[in-house]
Parts: sequence; C-alpha cells; structure tokens
Amino acid sequence: MEETFVPFRGIKNDLKGRLLCYKQDWIGGIRAGIRILAPTTYIFFASAIPVISFGEQLERNTEGTLTAVQTLSSTALCGVIHSLIGGQPLLILGVAEPTVLMYTFMFDFVKDRKDLGQKLFLAWTGWVCVWTALLLFLLAVLGACSIINRFTRLAGEMFGLLIAMLFMQQAIRGVVEEFGIPERENRNETALRPSWRFGNGMFALVLSFGLLLTALRSRKARSWRYGTGWLRGFIADYGVPLMILVWTAVSYIPVRDVPHGIPRRLFSPNPWSTGAFSNWTVIKEMPKVPLLYIIGAFIPATMIAVLYYFDHSVASQLAQQKEFNLKKPSSYHYDLLLLGFLTILCGLIGIPPSNGVIPQSPMHTKSLATLKHQLLRNKLASTARQSMRKNSNLSQLYRNMQQAYDDIQTPLAYQIPPAPGLKELKESTIQLAASTGYIGAPVDETIFDVDNDIDDLLPVEVKEQRLSNLLQALLVAGCVAAMPLLKKIPSSVLWGYFAFMAIESLPGNQFWERILLLFTAPSRRYKVLEEYHAAFIETVPFKTIAFFTLFQTAYLLLCFGLTWIPIAGVLFPLLIMLLVPVRQYFLPRYFKGAHLQDLDAAEYEEAPAIAFNVPYNDQDVRATNIDGEEILDEMMTRSRGEIRHTRSPKVSSHTQGSFEDIKPAFSPRLQQCAFSPHLAEPRMGGSPRSNGKQVVVKQTASPGPSGL
Amino acid sequence: MEETFVPFRGIKNDLKGRLLCYKQDWIGGIRAGIRILAPTTYIFFASAIPVISFGEQLERNTEGTLTAVQTLSSTALCGVIHSLIGGQPLLILGVAEPTVLMYTFMFDFVKDRKDLGQKLFLAWTGWVCVWTALLLFLLAVLGACSIINRFTRLAGEMFGLLIAMLFMQQAIRGVVEEFGIPERENRNETALRPSWRFGNGMFALVLSFGLLLTALRSRKARSWRYGTGWLRGFIADYGVPLMILVWTAVSYIPVRDVPHGIPRRLFSPNPWSTGAFSNWTVIKEMPKVPLLYIIGAFIPATMIAVLYYFDHSVASQLAQQKEFNLKKPSSYHYDLLLLGFLTILCGLIGIPPSNGVIPQSPMHTKSLATLKHQLLRNKLASTARQSMRKNSNLSQLYRNMQQAYDDIQTPLAYQIPPAPGLKELKESTIQLAASTGYIGAPVDETIFDVDNDIDDLLPVEVKEQRLSNLLQALLVAGCVAAMPLLKKIPSSVLWGYFAFMAIESLPGNQFWERILLLFTAPSRRYKVLEEYHAAFIETVPFKTIAFFTLFQTAYLLLCFGLTWIPIAGVLFPLLIMLLVPVRQYFLPRYFKGAHLQDLDAAEYEEAPAIAFNVPYNDQDVRATNIDGEEILDEMMTRSRGEIRHTRSPKVSSHTQGSFEDIKPAFSPRLQQCAFSPHLAEPRMGGSPRSNGKQVVVKQTASPGPSGL
Repeated sequence: MEETFVPFRGIKNDLKGRLLCYKQDWIGGIRAGIRILAPTTYIFFASAIPVISFGEQLERNTEGTLTAVQTLSSTALCGVIHSLIGGQPLLILGVAEPTVLMYTFMFDFVKDRKDLGQKLFLAWTGWVCVWTALLLFLLAVLGACSIINRFTRLAGEMFGLLIAMLFMQQAIRGVVEEFGIPERENRNETALRPSWRFGNGMFALVLSFGLLLTALRSRKARSWRYGTGWLRGFIADYGVPLMILVWTAVSYIPVRDVPHGIPRRLFSPNPWSTGAFSNWTVIKEMPKVPLLYIIGAFIPATMIAVLYYFDHSVASQLAQQKEFNLKKPSSYHYDLLLLGFLTILCGLIGIPPSNGVIPQSPMHTKSLATLKHQLLRNKLASTARQSMRKNSNLSQLYRNMQQAYDDIQTPLAYQIPPAPGLKELKESTIQLAASTGYIGAPVDETIFDVDNDIDDLLPVEVKEQRLSNLLQALLVAGCVAAMPLLKKIPSSVLWGYFAFMAIESLPGNQFWERILLLFTAPSRRYKVLEEYHAAFIETVPFKTIAFFTLFQTAYLLLCFGLTWIPIAGVLFPLLIMLLVPVRQYFLPRYFKGAHLQDLDAAEYEEAPAIAFNVPYNDQDVRATNIDGEEILDEMMTRSRGEIRHTRSPKVSSHTQGSFEDIKPAFSPRLQQCAFSPHLAEPRMGGSPRSNGKQVVVKQTASPGPSGL
Repeated sequence: MEETFVPFRGIKNDLKGRLLCYKQDWIGGIRAGIRILAPTTYIFFASAIPVISFGEQLERNTEGTLTAVQTLSSTALCGVIHSLIGGQPLLILGVAEPTVLMYTFMFDFVKDRKDLGQKLFLAWTGWVCVWTALLLFLLAVLGACSIINRFTRLAGEMFGLLIAMLFMQQAIRGVVEEFGIPERENRNETALRPSWRFGNGMFALVLSFGLLLTALRSRKARSWRYGTGWLRGFIADYGVPLMILVWTAVSYIPVRDVPHGIPRRLFSPNPWSTGAFSNWTVIKEMPKVPLLYIIGAFIPATMIAVLYYFDHSVASQLAQQKEFNLKKPSSYHYDLLLLGFLTILCGLIGIPPSNGVIPQSPMHTKSLATLKHQLLRNKLASTARQSMRKNSNLSQLYRNMQQAYDDIQTPLAYQIPPAPGLKELKESTIQLAASTGYIGAPVDETIFDVDNDIDDLLPVEVKEQRLSNLLQALLVAGCVAAMPLLKKIPSSVLWGYFAFMAIESLPGNQFWERILLLFTAPSRRYKVLEEYHAAFIETVPFKTIAFFTLFQTAYLLLCFGLTWIPIAGVLFPLLIMLLVPVRQYFLPRYFKGAHLQDLDAAEYEEAPAIAFNVPYNDQDVRATNIDGEEILDEMMTRSRGEIRHTRSPKVSSHTQGSFEDIKPAFSPRLQQCAFSPHLAEPRMGGSPRSNGKQVVVKQTASPGPSGL
C-alpha cells in the first residue's frame, strides 16, 4: 500500500478495488454451500459471547442504562451493515472492551453532574459519538491509514497479546467472582449463603475448566486418530458451540437439594421488558444537553477516535496477514470512513458503537482458510479419482487436477497473481516422474495416494466472501430475540470461553513464540528449527532475540499496567501507537538493521513470502509424520507467522552466527540438510514423485557435506 | 523356562540362579547412588496409596477390626522380607483388592456365627492363612508355576486391564461418594449439610481431576520443551509425589467460612491409639476356634491360594516381560514358596497377607529401565566428551565408549548374553565411516553429537537390584508412623491417583492397543505402522484382529461382571485361568495358527525379539523427530508390547494380506520403505554415520521399488 496523504485518494482506491470483486464476494460465499456454516457459527460464538459479557459489565457500571441488549444490537447492526457495504468482509465488528471502559468512565463523569445526570447520559454520549465520527471522517479522508505500513509486527502482535491478557484476566476474575456475592443480588437468597457460594465457586471451576479443555481439544479433532472422518470434521468445525451446549447441559445435572441460582447464569433483561428500549429515542434528548458539555464531549471523542482508528486498522491488518495469501485488496481508508457513519448511527440511537475486534477478525480468516482448503481438497480428490478410473497417466492426472483447480478459482474482474503452487509442483513432479520412467503408466492409488498427496499440493488460500460475516451478524441479531435461551448458559462457561479465546489467539503470534523460545531449554531449541518457523530464528543471534523480546515484554506489561489506571487506562492504544516512532528512531540504535528487519519487518522492507506448497525440505519432514489435515491445523495455528526458508540467500549469509547460538553442533548439519531436501519421506517411498526425490538425494548428497 | 513338575526342582533352580546374582543385586543398587530414589519414591506412592485406601475400605467392612495400619504393616513387612530374601526383586508386594474382598466376605460369614463372631474373626482368618500357605507350599514344591508359560498375553494382559478397570471404578465411585454422606460420620455435622456436601463434591472433582491431569503431564516432563534439563528430569522422576503435595496444599486454600471436614481427608486411627494393635497377639486366640471352623477354613483358603498363585505369578511375569531385556533369572517357584511363609506369618499376627501386585510390579521395572538408561547415558556421554577432547577419531571414540559400557556391566557370576547392541552398531558404523573417508579424522560435536547420538546406541536395560524394593517397603513402614501426616491428604486426591494408576498401566498392553486400533479410523491406521508397533499389526488381517479383540473384550466384561457378584466375585481369577485351556484348545479352531501366534504368542513359540538399538528404519524415522529422552519415554510407555520388525522373514510372507487390510495403497510403499531404511534422517545429515546411510539409500533405492 503506498503511503499517500492526498485527500480522498485512499478511499477512492479502496472503493475501486473492492467494487471489482463485490459480486464475487457474494457468489463465492453462496457457492461454498452448507459448509459456510462452520466458520459462521465459530465466529458467531466468538463474537456474541464476549459482547454479552461486556453487556453485563456495562449494566453493572451504568446502573442498568445499557445492557447486553444494547451491545448485541450494536454488534448485529454494525455487523450487518459492514458485511453488506463494508470494504474488507473478513473484518468482524463488535462492541469491544475499550468501548465498555470508555462508557464506564463517561457514566461516572456524568452521573454526579446536576445538569446532566443519568437521564442525559445517553444524549451526551450521542454528542461524543458525533465528534468521534467527525474525527474518523477526517482521518479517513486524509489517508491516515496509510501509515498502517508502519504498524509493524511489533505493535500489532503486542496489541494481540494485550487483548489476550485482558481476556484471560476477565476469565480469572470471573471465576473468582463466582465465589463471592454478586452485586445486584438479594443477599438473603439461599444460593448466597457461604456454603452454597463455596459450592457455586467450585462448580464454576469445574464448568469453566471443562469448557476450556474440551474446546481446545475439539479444535484439534481433525488430527485425532479415532472416529470417522466425518465425525472428526464435524467436531473440529462445530466443537466449540457443541461444548458450550454440553457444559450448559452438565450445569443442569445437579437438581436435588441444589437451590435455584446455582450455578449462576447469564443475567440480562429481555429486550421486550419495560425500559429496555428507552435508549432508541435518545436523539430527542440530545438538544437538551448544555452547550458546554456538547463542546466538552470533544475530549472523550478524541480518545475514542484514536482508539477506533488503531483498533479497527490493526484488526483489519491481522485479518489480512500475508501468510493467508489473500487475493482481494485491502480497504483501510474506506472502512474507517464507514466506521465513522456507524459510530454516528449508534450514537443517535443510544447504543455503544462497534469497531473491528481482535482476536475475532484473524480467527475469522483462519476458519475461512480451513473452509477453502476443504473445498479445494474435495474437488481435487474427486477429479483425481475420476482420472484414475479412466486409467490416466500421471501427467494427465495432474493436468486434470490443475484444470479443476483453475475452475474453482472464480475469475475476478481484476488482475490476480497466477494460481500459485499447484502448477509449479505439477511440472517438477511430472519431470521427475518422467526421469524415472513412470510417465506413461496408468496411475493408481499406490502411485498417487489421493487422501494424502493432495494436501501437499494445496496452497493456503482463504474463502474470501461476505456471506459468513453477514450470517454471523444476523445470528447475533437473533441473540437479542433468543435472550431467554442465552440466559440458560452458566456464567462460568462464559469465563471458560474467555480463556479459550485468549489461548486460541496465541499461536502464530511471533511475539508469543519468541517468549516461548526464551523459556525453551537450550538443548531443545533445535526442535523449533524442525517445525515451521519464522526466519529470524535462523538469522538473528539468540541474544538479540532475547533482548528484543524482553524489551517488548516490558512494554507490554507497561501497557497492561496502564489499563488498570482509571480514565488514563483507555489511552493504552496511544502507548502502542508510540511504538511507531520507537521502532523507527529508537530501536535502530540498539539493534542491527538486518536483525530488526527479520524480527519486525515493515511491510515494504519484507522479503517476498514463499508459497506453502513448494516442497522444501522442512515442510516435507513434517509431512512424514502428520497427514494433510494436520498440516493444515499446524499452518492455521502454529505458524501464521511470517515463514521463510533456510535456503533463502539472506539466510546463508547470516546462518553461521545464529545457528551457533542455538546449538553449536547443529550448524553444519542443517546446512547439509538444506542440500538434501527430500531425505525424509519414508511414507512416500513407493510413489514416482518420491523416487524422483531419492534421485535428488543421490545427486546432491554425494558431493560431500559442506560443513565438514 | 522348562515345564517341569519334578518336586522341588523348580525351587532349586530358582534359588541357584538368584543366589549367583544376589551380591550383585545389592552392589548394583548401591552403585546407582542417589538416583535410586526416583524409582523408589515412584513405587512407594504407587504401593502405599492403594494400600491406605484398601485399609479404609477394610475398616468400614470389618467394623474397625482391620484398618490401614494393618494393611500398611503387611505391605511393609512382606515387602521388606521379599526384598531381602525373595527371588525376583522387581516384584512388588502389597495388600491387594482381591484380598480385601476375601476378608470382607469372611467377616460377613463370621460376624453372625455365635461360636465365632467378630471376636474370633482374626483367629479364624489365621487358620485360613495356614491352609492357604500349605496349599501354596504344595503348588510351589510341585512346580505349578511351570505352566506360567501357558499364561499367554491373552491372560496376562486381560488381567492387567481388569485391574485397571477396578482401579478406575474405585476412582469414579470415590468421587461420587464425595457428594454423599460417608457412613461413619455424624450426620449433624455442618460439613454434611446438603449445601456443604455439594461444595465438597465439586471440590473433590477439582482436586481429583487436577491431580490426574497434572500427574499425567508430569510423567512426560522429560520431553517438555521448556525448562532446564535438570528441572524436567526432576519433575519426570518425582512429579507424581510432587503433585500429591501440591494438590494437598491446594486443598488447604479455602479456609474462610469453610467448615472442618471439607474437603474430606484420609481416615485412619493412629497406630498408637487404643485397639489398633489388638491384632498382633491373635495367635493366642487361634486355639479357641472350633474344630469344624478350622476345617471349614480350607474352603476360603483354596480360593485365596488360587488367587495368590495366579496374581503373584502374573505380576512377576508382567514385571519380567521380554522387552525389558532382563539379564537375571526368574524365580517363580521359590517366590511362591516364600509367599506361603509370608501368608502364615501375616495370618498369625492377624494382618491381611500381601501378594505380588499389578500394575505396581511392571511400573517398578519400567522406572528402573529409565534409571538404567540415565546411568548409561551419563557414563557414555562423559566418555565420549573425554575422547573428543583427546582428538580421538571415530573408531577410537566408539572403542572407548564400548569399554565404558562394558565397565558398567558389573561382571555377574553366571553366563549372560554378550552386551547387546552397542557393539553391533559400533562396527557397522565404523565400517560406514571408513567407506566415506572419515575414519582417521578427529571427531568433534558435528560428527558425533553426544547429547543426541548416544541415545541411539543404548539398548533397553533394567537396573535389576534389590535396593529400590527394600527402600520402598521401608517407606511404607514409615507410613504407619507418619499416619498423622498422611491424614492430611484429601481423599479426592486419592481417587485422582487411582485414575492415574489405571491410565498409567494401559500403554504397552497389546490388548488395550488392539481395542484402540478398532476405534482408529481406517484412513488413520497407517499411523500405527509409523510408530513402534507389535508384529501382529502387519501380519494378521484386520478382521482377525477385530474378531480376536472382540472375543477378548467380551471375556473381560464377563470377568468384570463377575467381580460384582458377592462371594463368587473373588473367583474371577479362575475365569482367567480358564483362558489357558480356552487358548490351547478352543481358539485354534477359529483362528489360523500363524495369526494366533502373532496375536498371542506362547513364550516357547515366540520368535526371538530384536534389540531396540539396531538401526532399523522405523525406529530411525521416530528418531528424527524426537530426541533420546522421548524415545525412552515412548519405549517405556507405548511399546512395552512385543516388538518385531517388518524385515523379519515371517513378516514378508504375510505382509501382502494384512497391509491391504490396513490400507490398500500402502502395501507397496511400506515394502519399498523396508528396502531404504535410513531415508528419514535430516537431522543427522552431517555426520559420517548418516552419510553412510545415504550411501545405503543410493544402493538400495536405485534398483527400483519392489511393489510397482
């Protein structure tokens, strides 16, 4: 993205790009068929559950003025509008924790003023929203999002980790509170006696840990060894909602002797109860706000604008990381403009506004990558089987598969890079097959193992469309009506879900992975090299990695500490934005440019990423022990990080130093390794492709190891 | 072991064999130094905790006549005597569940008889013990244990699984009872009100699952990626006792408002309290038992004798499975004789007798194998480093290591097979190194990676000695005195520990692994082949495996059902002994001889096992991704089963059929695989050894795949 500050240019470019693929956004979604429900429900729960919980929080903090009904309404309304006319449909909108904090502070400010009070609270926040929207318009028009390039991994990943910490904090606080007396309850209830509170707390521990552990397990169902493929796929796709159902059911098991109110369940008024909709007509009250306060509303508005500008852009950026190989263009400027309109809209009907949320947005992209993989896989597998039935030879087989692959790629009205990966592999493989004499023979399952070989051919692609976003927003809207059902979910299940979301957001975050690396025993560090790993692990000395990570951790803790300070707390995004100059002017004094680039590449500096399916050696090493679906799991979880390869020219120039940091004895071996890429494929021993690889081994291994 | 029924011959042979290594049994144990404490504490907890819980059970069932003090005393006394003068020191003795059941039935019989009553209960059981001992003497003298050869895997593994089920049943029942009112308590206590009972039950769930999950994790600590090697080793060795401490500490966290008695803790009288030692003088009461009852005592005595004969021999057999490569002889006959004496001794002092226990005995051997591995490893690593410092070449290095290895093998007074493995590998490796020109050069860490390469050289060996057994028995004796401390352990932690023991005993049980195989998705079955696996998976058609396993499962459920029937219940070992004729006469009608031999080889039929360290391909495949300590973990857990190899002549004759059952596409590939054994060693790329292997690849892979 070019860094342009010419007014309106960014918005115009965004609109142009997205309009070209708008039709395909819908067609693609509809063509995915019933399977679109997997990412939809996954994101719906990830979106709705925190929003409900934030609603409860707001209700306590605003003495009932705002409730889960309002937060859900905002999330649903903004979600529907954004999925229909927004730019980047991967972005998920919702009422986020910072918004809740802001509204709490504003309520505290308002409630003691005689000329405002609780009555005019929503009217005043209406004005705040108006100011916020104006600031957002300004930022969008002037192209402020251009500097998103300067938000390097440093800032984005730290923000991701901070959000994970806040979610985890909420989970822990929630479970601890289950042992105490909730504020709004009547203290004389049976369920609030010390004995029952103890039981309630322990039950909450059981339910929340039960949900957390089973949900984490269910996400990995695709690589389970037991059960049929259908069942495993179903559990992996719908495991999390399923587990919420299961643990809610479990919460109903103890009936005998156990009083009503144990375990505690969600609390929210039904949307049709009195007073729950007083907010909708707040626009009538807005003129009653004294002028001084209308002007004063500018102060919180700047904070919220900064917050939204940062939050919205980073959420969008994280949902579009380059490892996902997205084909459709980004839309930062236009989305910020639209966010301005949404903020005004929400302000005028008296509900808290929504913005792009983390970790839901990257979770959305991940789940759509899984979807696309399955669609591609099914299509190619049936093509391959058909070809085999016709006694095709290998070259025909690959030609047919390539064609099927191309067919799936709905033509777009704009230029996209040619279909990656599949083609390259096809040619190299056919060449190898030819050299070993299998080119003419009919292919059977012993040569091309449909179930396992196709996964190796597939690149990471994302089903980019609008349908899943629209559906999840509609489901959130349905929640408002389904409030009586939602209230059956125990709050402890919610806390378990918060912890689940925090943990789900960690893999792929390089900052997190570097923290883990610091705790990895030196003798085990080579293991990191055996897995997918980011380039910096090989190119940057361990001490530099450690120092960089410690600096980042200290900064993270500073931000986290700031969230605990009243009022000032909401300004933690400013502290993260401060990282831009810190990264640009301060860090280069202490770190070598090359190291800094590997640890935290700015987009324009970054080396081109390699396609996932190119058969480089370290990927094949993994392929020997896990099959395709697991590879996908791994890609989608462990290694969203920037992935580069040992053999890139840059690496070889740095290799020696960093390898020695990791493990002195390993350097020459790994170099050697890079020269014999396909050593590790026993499972493929019989296929011509692998035979070809053995030929490669012969050719490259013989000249002698370089490191000795 | 020859099948001889000449009186006394078995006992004489046993004594002769064990006496020759008796001195070494002690020297070896003492030389192991402080590390002997790891297996000692591990087995101590495995031994003491069930015994305490059985004591509690007995106390309820015998109205306080027998308590944990008596069961612990018996375990300690018999353990000490057996470790000092017993035959097989790997065998762990303890009061087992069947003994508890027997004593319960006998108490129920006695308490309503006017001429016996509770008062003469122990005197009568004294007579039962006398009869039992006489029967055991008879069995030992006549060489009944010779037919241990006919106890095939079928019987032994089913018994193992049955014990695991009984442990798990106890765990579940225990946790469920935490929600109810315990029998002996005063119903008016605060802690027994419904509200507190609910809390207590939930707390029990937290504590028991907490212990179970953390204990299971801690056992795998050696392969953790985080933490220093020392810490990981410590946690793997002492994790289970540590977790008992941790969760006991956790149980003390809730103090405020929570009444005494929550969570419930162990209940047992202190050994010095009144009445706790009335049993020791029971011999004085024995003449008072009416003659009719003295004769009648023969009936329960036969049951107990059959039970002990079976239990003791199978526990000993499972502790001496051939995969452990034990070097010292077995001692079934003599141990049974000694058990007779122990039974009389216990009977005369009024405590329930002990016998060989499962799963503690095989757990003991496993933990000693880990110990031996670490000792060998340390010694060889320091030798290798020393050699490198002296600039030795590879051949010198291996010579030095071989010498160090031989030094460690304390000379035994009897013939043992020559030190396996290390030597073979050394020669083949040196030969390969010579052919690639590295024979003369000084070795450094890039050629021989001390930390990782040594594990590949080491065979599985067991530190066979008496010290750990003696020490654990003494610790059990210490428990009697430490009763006030033991009482601080919450009973729910105990139930978690029961579940832990049940789960720990499963890996390596081929019956269990076949059950898992039945649930494995057909498309994932090839994964089993990629791991260590027993020969039958390759040689026996899947349908036959399934049918055999279903038969065995039905039989297991029958045995399990039998344990629920009062009185008759204790006879379940008879049902398992019935398996001997079933296996010999009934099963061959329905299964092919070759299949049956692979599924359930009788000892004399079994093909010679291969040493673990011979560098066959499937082991090396694993070695690429896990390092030595993990390999050990795997060996010690997953694959205690009989391991044979793809390349054995027998396999190739059967291969085709069974591979097709598992996965049609895989057959030729796997055969191919067997011809190119060392394809999968990228990590070793730089070492001359691996280079040699690549040479092998070149030579074998070129002729063309056999299956195509």
